[in-house]
Amino acid sequence: MKYNFYAGPAILAQEVMQEASRAVVEFNGMGFSILEISHRSKEFIAVMDEAVSLAKELLNVPEEYEVLFLAGGASLQFAMAPMNLLDASMKAAYTDTGTWASKAIKDGKLYGQVDVIACSKDANYSYIPRGYEIDPSYRFLHITSNNTIFGTQYQSFPETSVPLVSDMSSDIFSRVIDVNKFDLIYAGAQKNMGPAGTTLVIVKKSALGKVNRQIPAMMNYQNHIDSASMYNTPPVFPVYVSMLTLRWIKRNGGIAGIQKKNEAKAAALYGEIERNSLFYTPTNHEDKSKMNVCFLLHDKEKEKQFLANCKSAGCIGLEGHRSVGGFRASIYNAMTLEGVNQLIGVMQDFEKVNG
Amino acid sequence: MKYNFYAGPAILAQEVMQEASRAVVEFNGMGFSILEISHRSKEFIAVMDEAVSLAKELLNVPEEYEVLFLAGGASLQFAMAPMNLLDASMKAAYTDTGTWASKAIKDGKLYGQVDVIACSKDANYSYIPRGYEIDPSYRFLHITSNNTIFGTQYQSFPETSVPLVSDMSSDIFSRVIDVNKFDLIYAGAQKNMGPAGTTLVIVKKSALGKVNRQIPAMMNYQNHIDSASMYNTPPVFPVYVSMLTLRWIKRNGGIAGIQKKNEAKAAALYGEIERNSLFYTPTNHEDKSKMNVCFLLHDKEKEKQFLANCKSAGCIGLEGHRSVGGFRASIYNAMTLEGVNQLIGVMQDFEKVNG
Repeated sequence: MKYNFYAGPAILAQEVMQEASRAVVEFNGMGFSILEISHRSKEFIAVMDEAVSLAKELLNVPEEYEVLFLAGGASLQFAMAPMNLLDASMKAAYTDTGTWASKAIKDGKLYGQVDVIACSKDANYSYIPRGYEIDPSYRFLHITSNNTIFGTQYQSFPETSVPLVSDMSSDIFSRVIDVNKFDLIYAGAQKNMGPAGTTLVIVKKSALGKVNRQIPAMMNYQNHIDSASMYNTPPVFPVYVSMLTLRWIKRNGGIAGIQKKNEAKAAALYGEIERNSLFYTPTNHEDKSKMNVCFLLHDKEKEKQFLANCKSAGCIGLEGHRSVGGFRASIYNAMTLEGVNQLIGVMQDFEKVNG
Repeated sequence: MKYNFYAGPAILAQEVMQEASRAVVEFNGMGFSILEISHRSKEFIAVMDEAVSLAKELLNVPEEYEVLFLAGGASLQFAMAPMNLLDASMKAAYTDTGTWASKAIKDGKLYGQVDVIACSKDANYSYIPRGYEIDPSYRFLHITSNNTIFGTQYQSFPETSVPLVSDMSSDIFSRVIDVNKFDLIYAGAQKNMGPAGTTLVIVKKSALGKVNRQIPAMMNYQNHIDSASMYNTPPVFPVYVSMLTLRWIKRNGGIAGIQKKNEAKAAALYGEIERNSLFYTPTNHEDKSKMNVCFLLHDKEKEKQFLANCKSAGCIGLEGHRSVGGFRASIYNAMTLEGVNQLIGVMQDFEKVNG
């Protein structure tokens, strides 16, 4: 048995992959693979419709929002979001909480005035900034809800009258959120939703149509809304597997049920890091991510040995990102408590030998 | 047995889908699905490297070009191409040979002066324009090599000193081409290369870096070149299946071998349309696509019956696009001569009853 702790693309539910595998040979009794059917076939339109309606249901998306499945990864949204929401004469606020936030800021600056109103770079992004002022005249406040690389996460969202825009790539569908606070949410699929290749966009309809610039067709949310995510050929298979994953979430208690399991997994792993004399986490206590758990050995010399032990125990993908070092355990929705306990067992055994 | 004549997403080789299906359960002995492995894993880097190197080998891509696998569909390239190649002070020539060419023109106009130097709209795009002048001062001439909807195809490319830029979404890897004529070739995967979700880009290195505008990170070819198509998480599975398809092309005689088969299939089907008293093609003789064969019944009343007969014989996806009507048989690389002969059989039987 192997346990997948990769940061992304990441673990998906076994039953989702079994069904996806069968659909690659034959989908829905059509006599064809899901890979070779027209996106205009009634069978695929049903897949897209179900994916959209499950996303709406699971996240309790209000009527005045649209849900889209686009191609291109969340990184494309770093440009699309300001292109569609921020006129050259407007200003937007961004918080800089790590690599992805920084990239969003860089693209945002191409489309209007961007003020970085809070930043945690001074401590290697190990915390989520607090106590900053948010001028109510900002068009939006852009945040990265979970920082995959640095293992931090907004446990609650900034209280402000300014609409929020959030990259939720690494924690969408992992916890209950109030969509009403947001003008725009976007999330690459490859953590909690599906395989790499599609991006979920939730956008408030009334937030669109207020910029003067001409937007290329594929970058214009309104085009995708008008054609129900079929403006061009969508990434059929990634959307299909996302739909299967959303069904799996629904079967497993919905977001509230998943959130409870995620909290239990994170509590167990952070608890062991705290208890175990060999390890520590560089992450600020209140901001610890329930998706990506960063931790280090006090004795760096032993890193290779620990990783080797993890591997022997079937725990794969635990190398920390080079920006933080040490280890990172990504414990997304599909990671079981059993998998987390397997890792905890390796940590405990390591302490017995090296403590 | 069913035969897939969909225009795209379209038929792929059976053996490719069998292998892809297995990889969705377990890839390469890793103990994980191809859907849940890191794009930074050595196993996926090997997939990307092989996909790039097979594309280079099969198309005989010269040293001074880069090959990229991007996300987002060819429609995104309608904007990316001029954004990267056309300064606001420059002018580019476009030919308008149908729906996709028209969309490319619309986005092109956002980034510089665009002159439509030839257009076949006067005859419902049933031919490829000829005999127009190409001013040598144009930055590039943009063409759509094969027009999926209207069933026309450039049998040879315009002779000009102006570098060509081509959308080859529906005939890439179907015939031998001379890449040297092009500054840029782009092609959505979902006809001859793989499933929907990735786009091949072949770009001449010296064509880049000559525009002054600031380009969003994901729209900048140079960023993707500098990171070997891993600037962000690539569409892992669509790239993997594309790699499998390129291997399959190589095993089947390479592009020259595939071209020979494609010519035989097209000759058989157009031959039958010409011979059969019930059918005709609206497409100009010299411009007939070897990928998408458009044809109609003289007696429109019998369309539904013919489609029903096709379906009974296992021939699926033959409804013509609403812009042309009638029927369209897409006979991409993976369509067998047996499949084409099955359709020809239905046409012959239909003539026996209705002729």
